Amino acid sequence: MLGRINHIAIAVPDLAAATATYRDVLGAAVSQVQTLPDHGVRVVFVNLPNSKVELLEPLDGNSPIAAFLEKNPSGGMHHICYEVEDIISARDSLKAAGARILGDGEPKIGAHGKPVLFLHPKDFCGTLVELEEI
Amino acid sequence: MLGRINHIAIAVPDLAAATATYRDVLGAAVSQVQTLPDHGVRVVFVNLPNSKVELLEPLDGNSPIAAFLEKNPSGGMHHICYEVEDIISARDSLKAAGARILGDGEPKIGAHGKPVLFLHPKDFCGTLVELEEI
Repeated sequence: MLGRINHIAIAVPDLAAATATYRDVLGAAVSQVQTLPDHGVRVVFVNLPNSKVELLEPLDGNSPIAAFLEKNPSGGMHHICYEVEDIISARDSLKAAGARILGDGEPKIGAHGKPVLFLHPKDFCGTLVELEEI
Repeated sequence: MLGRINHIAIAVPDLAAATATYRDVLGAAVSQVQTLPDHGVRVVFVNLPNSKVELLEPLDGNSPIAAFLEKNPSGGMHHICYEVEDIISARDSLKAAGARILGDGEPKIGAHGKPVLFLHPKDFCGTLVELEEI
């Protein structure tokens, strides 16, 4: 079922500082800032040869990553996104195996304009898993 | 400086259960178990088309990941490993930029038999970063 690692998301308290760290200290290629109001975040992509890192800053206190940053004020790895070919088939297979899908279980359109689902961390080694249909 | 994402490490309390989750529920290719006494862990690699996930289980209470699992009993993302071409050059550049290298600052031989260094999470968005010379 699992395809490529699409991205690793890192929640950060200060997107400009995090971008400077990855660009200037670690010498990586970074994107422009994208504001995604539907997802409550501002995003910078760190483009690496085989995958990417997404730096996420909350737009406000209602952002899905606000609570994570309260617990982890310096930031931290927030989720891992794997690509799947067919997200409905993946979801149905996961549900049949007893895994919990977050939200109402229906795919939403994610930050890249593709259907995504999130899986319950308790069912996946304490790791929030995003599936993205490619 | 940064090259490919070599792996994402996920610390897990039960390697057999985590391996079954990735193999049977998520449908990924997994390796045999490797015991690495020098690193205090047992490891299974989840091989994905563009990178890999390392599932890490502590060998005992002295393992470098034992404290992490005490704080995160279900497991969780522990570190991200980026490839670099020249680890000494990378280290010297990072030190010049004010970043902290963990331990004595000298590369050790990592789980893949290559020189590695770990960087202080506080300097990198709350994320433990491993650099591996490839």
